[in-house]
Amino acid sequence: MEIRARAPGKIILCGEHAVVHGCAAVAASIDLCTQVLLQSSQDGDVGLLQLELKDLNLQFSWSISRIQDFLPSETLPLSSSVECCSSDMMERLIALVAEHNIPEANIGLAVGVSAFLWLYISIAGFKTAKAIVTSNLPMGSGLGSSASFCVALSASLLALSGTISSASDQDGNLVLGERERELVNRWAFEGERIIHGRPSGIDNSVSTFGNMIMFKSGELTRIKAGLPLKMLITNTKVGRNTKALVAGVAERAGRHPEAMSSVFKAIDAISMELSTIIQSGASDDLSIIEKEEKLQELMEMNMGLLQSMGVSHASIEMVLQTTLKYKLTSKLTGAGGGGCVLTLLPSLLPSNVVEKVIAVLESHGFQCFIAAIGGGGVEVCVNHRL
Amino acid sequence: MEIRARAPGKIILCGEHAVVHGCAAVAASIDLCTQVLLQSSQDGDVGLLQLELKDLNLQFSWSISRIQDFLPSETLPLSSSVECCSSDMMERLIALVAEHNIPEANIGLAVGVSAFLWLYISIAGFKTAKAIVTSNLPMGSGLGSSASFCVALSASLLALSGTISSASDQDGNLVLGERERELVNRWAFEGERIIHGRPSGIDNSVSTFGNMIMFKSGELTRIKAGLPLKMLITNTKVGRNTKALVAGVAERAGRHPEAMSSVFKAIDAISMELSTIIQSGASDDLSIIEKEEKLQELMEMNMGLLQSMGVSHASIEMVLQTTLKYKLTSKLTGAGGGGCVLTLLPSLLPSNVVEKVIAVLESHGFQCFIAAIGGGGVEVCVNHRL
Repeated sequence: MEIRARAPGKIILCGEHAVVHGCAAVAASIDLCTQVLLQSSQDGDVGLLQLELKDLNLQFSWSISRIQDFLPSETLPLSSSVECCSSDMMERLIALVAEHNIPEANIGLAVGVSAFLWLYISIAGFKTAKAIVTSNLPMGSGLGSSASFCVALSASLLALSGTISSASDQDGNLVLGERERELVNRWAFEGERIIHGRPSGIDNSVSTFGNMIMFKSGELTRIKAGLPLKMLITNTKVGRNTKALVAGVAERAGRHPEAMSSVFKAIDAISMELSTIIQSGASDDLSIIEKEEKLQELMEMNMGLLQSMGVSHASIEMVLQTTLKYKLTSKLTGAGGGGCVLTLLPSLLPSNVVEKVIAVLESHGFQCFIAAIGGGGVEVCVNHRL
Repeated sequence: MEIRARAPGKIILCGEHAVVHGCAAVAASIDLCTQVLLQSSQDGDVGLLQLELKDLNLQFSWSISRIQDFLPSETLPLSSSVECCSSDMMERLIALVAEHNIPEANIGLAVGVSAFLWLYISIAGFKTAKAIVTSNLPMGSGLGSSASFCVALSASLLALSGTISSASDQDGNLVLGERERELVNRWAFEGERIIHGRPSGIDNSVSTFGNMIMFKSGELTRIKAGLPLKMLITNTKVGRNTKALVAGVAERAGRHPEAMSSVFKAIDAISMELSTIIQSGASDDLSIIEKEEKLQELMEMNMGLLQSMGVSHASIEMVLQTTLKYKLTSKLTGAGGGGCVLTLLPSLLPSNVVEKVIAVLESHGFQCFIAAIGGGGVEVCVNHRL
């Protein structure tokens, strides 16, 4: 049996940082994905669990019996009843992963592999299989690469274990209902907890359900995008410390409570307006071009407010300046201090302009992606004949 | 008799644009000045009124009798009772100035010369004299050059007419009391009205009284700065349309009333905080360095909020980026869309860093000034012996 699952990454359209202070933010799926190919029967590989991370050119392999020594089955949850990974279990996982000599500096890889093992054994048990992972999402850039990995992995494992067994559509994809997606989402969230400690749940929700999500005070509301949108995503490749950036904003809010609470309020209003425009579809009198202009204005406003929080960075400003020369509007997405920048690509923008902008951005050492916004969530395709 | 008057320019420290929407803004004097030298008795020039604009290399000359034909004395106010220039009078002034063949494109110059004639004749009557004007303020860049011209001119004319005749201090400057300054200020405001149509009165007030002024909802409150501050002022030399920029912000506020009213509120809070810090002097526990850091943070916040209003410009962003490389904080001052940018120069900043920054900025074609902030207002010095 061969199972393919792919799950999208995400961007924060507006509201980052302000969301920590009780304001609304809007996240959207992007059509950059992580793909998991699960091969459950490999001749000659019986008794092995293998993980291949293609983009990193890394292979991991454990004998099933070795795993059973470390993670006895009575300690594991059932695939249909989601449980979190206990600290005792976490220690066992880390010890198991540590046998693979991952450089200490690459703690992100170690926890990612731990999450893989936890999800695999918890959902599929001690089956022989090989998982091959590829992704066109840059890692650690705020585009939700870890969540899309957890979602694609959870979905493929839930299909492997037979826990989700929907009918297939004409493309061979399982038709996932609300209940199935909810289960995928909950398992993915547990994987995210292993990787991130205290994730918000936004990334895995967007990756699972697709479209857009508004989140405010811990509550997630799914939004159906009625407007086709394209973004240029520029990865500045400047690493940043999200915790320090979030703390910096909180400190600034402590020093200037009145001014900063108004800054947050302005962002809350922007998130509300933006989600209204995006949901409107063809249902009102504004043309797509007028809506795109409104979105650009809201993005510019949000970016200014982020600048006033002090979370911009020279690399982000460089992207802003470059795209401004082509009359395009950009804003940082995520924590700031580097990371990724969004540039709305209006529907009537000639493709040669896009090419030029990308060429200039890439000449500065940045990495560019064009992404459609608000597409579907995780997809799973099962091929029983293999 | 020879009279010298000099009057400072101004910067807006914070609150530009938001002030139009009822929020507080803070303006401060800078030690860049316009100087007027009034020579009341020129042998060989009897019967002439002359104006020399040294920086523009321009000279104007009218025979007093010609002026009397155009502006009969019964139509003029007295120097001690300020009146505004009627539209009939304005037409006569323009006709008189038009005899000098000023290119149509230079409407600013024509109204400036009209204001000169109006102030001269209204305050000093039909005296023979020569006024020589020099300034180290760039014209039309939002640094209050026209107001400082009107203030220096009004002060020198009021001294010439004997309307203000205070005692002199040890430097030979007249000791101007509140009443004298108020009279200078009111005349200067009438000159500003000829030049600008509907000036706010802020520029001439700062130029007359010096120090700083907080203005909110049309009310001006004078602030005594307790903190010595130095700013690098970078003139981008990019001309801008202030009216269009103000209208653009109002339109944006109309499109996004909730978000924009929070943006304005945030700026109001910033203006209040900034004026408190600046007034504090040595009266609290914060060191000068801590205060400078607070001011930098407030400037960064205000700049972000101005960016969210859409009044920044590529040239302004270039200055921001350049100074950021040296860990210096900048914000636009005035209407934006070009014009001038302020960069706080902390007291412990080594002078070679300042020199480097200036060199880089000037290599981009910008013009740099270093200015002390919040100094005294107009000064007048009378030399009776000449």
